[in-house]
Amino acid sequence: MSGQPPVFVPTASASFAVFRRLGPQMAALDGFMRDQVANFEPEIRGMAAYCLESTGKRLRPALVFISGWKGEGVVDDSLVRAAGIVEMVHLATLVHDDIMDGADLRRNRDTAARAFGPDAAVLLGDALFSQALHVAAQFPTTEVCRLVAESTRKVCSGEIMQTLHRRDMSVTRADYYRVIDLKTAELFRTSCYLGARLAGFAGDFVKAANDFGRHLGIAYQIYDDLVDVFGEEKKIGKTLGTDLASGKLTLPLMLLLEKLPEVERAEVIGAMQAGQPLPLSASSESMRALGIGDAVVRSVDEELVHARAVLAPFASLAPVTLMLQLCELLKTQLSALDSSGPKS
Amino acid sequence: MSGQPPVFVPTASASFAVFRRLGPQMAALDGFMRDQVANFEPEIRGMAAYCLESTGKRLRPALVFISGWKGEGVVDDSLVRAAGIVEMVHLATLVHDDIMDGADLRRNRDTAARAFGPDAAVLLGDALFSQALHVAAQFPTTEVCRLVAESTRKVCSGEIMQTLHRRDMSVTRADYYRVIDLKTAELFRTSCYLGARLAGFAGDFVKAANDFGRHLGIAYQIYDDLVDVFGEEKKIGKTLGTDLASGKLTLPLMLLLEKLPEVERAEVIGAMQAGQPLPLSASSESMRALGIGDAVVRSVDEELVHARAVLAPFASLAPVTLMLQLCELLKTQLSALDSSGPKS
Repeated sequence: MSGQPPVFVPTASASFAVFRRLGPQMAALDGFMRDQVANFEPEIRGMAAYCLESTGKRLRPALVFISGWKGEGVVDDSLVRAAGIVEMVHLATLVHDDIMDGADLRRNRDTAARAFGPDAAVLLGDALFSQALHVAAQFPTTEVCRLVAESTRKVCSGEIMQTLHRRDMSVTRADYYRVIDLKTAELFRTSCYLGARLAGFAGDFVKAANDFGRHLGIAYQIYDDLVDVFGEEKKIGKTLGTDLASGKLTLPLMLLLEKLPEVERAEVIGAMQAGQPLPLSASSESMRALGIGDAVVRSVDEELVHARAVLAPFASLAPVTLMLQLCELLKTQLSALDSSGPKS
Repeated sequence: MSGQPPVFVPTASASFAVFRRLGPQMAALDGFMRDQVANFEPEIRGMAAYCLESTGKRLRPALVFISGWKGEGVVDDSLVRAAGIVEMVHLATLVHDDIMDGADLRRNRDTAARAFGPDAAVLLGDALFSQALHVAAQFPTTEVCRLVAESTRKVCSGEIMQTLHRRDMSVTRADYYRVIDLKTAELFRTSCYLGARLAGFAGDFVKAANDFGRHLGIAYQIYDDLVDVFGEEKKIGKTLGTDLASGKLTLPLMLLLEKLPEVERAEVIGAMQAGQPLPLSASSESMRALGIGDAVVRSVDEELVHARAVLAPFASLAPVTLMLQLCELLKTQLSALDSSGPKS
């Protein structure tokens, strides 16, 4: 919390080829995020810097840069600002999420809620949201502000629904998709839209980028829910198994409940509703053996098929190669999860 | 939480002459707020309506309407929208404040935190903020969005500072004024600015309205802190004494600590820091006897002198009469508090 400028650690994603190509853009984003700190009131700059120091994946900024890709090393100031805006909105939601989940650790360090207390974290998230919108209002027209404000509201609505559904075992698959569409796909969608739009691509590609972002977002959230079951804590840098522990009904768990025999099913539901440790039948080994991992991977694949399909008419455009590489990257990450059952 | 449209109860302030003149504008605001509900995702509309059903004082909308006053019954759509925006931002901050203060009751009914749980309330506040900014982005230029986003960040920064200062007895009067300038005066200032600006008044009056709003906001917050000590719970409709109980160092308490003899002072500080019930020396009777009420009233008066002074060159403008009446109204409310010691 000193007056020192924050140290921006290279993103974890930089080891992937598609992200390596974004080096100059991400460096510009680093500079932008660092400059943002000075826009907060002096008394809370240290706290703001703590949140803005992103050691995260910076997926949403990557979507902006990729959807607005004009060639190697081309850094467009409006894309950098848009990338900064969506990342700040995302960081704000993480600050609030971590309060609700009671999570202590994110990206291998204390969450804001743990570092500053939950009360200050509520307000810090608000200040990050506001600053994101303030930057959005500095574009020449109101379009960016309108899109980002609406997306933010939808993200929060999705999170509210998820909170209301906690420990509710009557949640349907349609409910699950509705929640992840809002809480995750919405900001992916807006990131892709803004990238393509601000880079000056034609309306039909902007629309395609928008739809691509939505499908990729749904795919990514299903993948992320699978990570919570099959990921390795050390590699991911956050507390895993929190979805199950907090009674969040994710696709893996929904499928598990469908596949478990009556008695075990009742045990798992009972434990979830009571907030107690889950029985062995809900362990990752059990899920793997029941083929849950494979089934969830198929659901991710379905979305990726849609994501690729909307890009088909635009194969000659510069961004599309990188957008397709993002789909491949997600597939690679999925395979690395070791979620596959004995049959496959 | 049914599908019924919310019932908008007439504001408590309607009994004051200056507010009665705002009848047509406030009626238009009612309509605007009711229409806003439909902009939230269907699943959370009931919760949004619960918050938007304002039975409150609607001070900030009143400031917009009064600073942009063009005559009896003139209802300007852009003022109604600006009034709705500042009220939504304010309602969002209340939702988050009530989580932190652990308050159960506001305006004689359950707080959102109590009605929906603190987790959903965090997100509901976020959704209200976002929707306010979304409406702000519907003005032709980015100015409203920029001002509202910046004000919102400042309000949150002030609240963060207040949270960090809790149970900190080294807080100075300068710290106190800095906090209330941000957490309260900022949105008062912006409300007055927007009213005058959107109504098309000349730049020098817009600036004066801005400064008036700031001084009135500081005066109002000091008054509000006095209400927490001397108010009547039934009349105010919220839990009183929460500032002291939560260790919030307000001007009345600062003055008390200055005036109390060493031993009693140490007792009060000890109780506040331990979060225990305060001794009798911190009761409203004790404060009244020590002349704390009178001293705080003088601090309010100082701000009102400044507020009136900035309007002096504009005495002939339509809004000014009503702006001055607002100062008088605050004076009347102050007198009604029964905070005065035996000497006065």
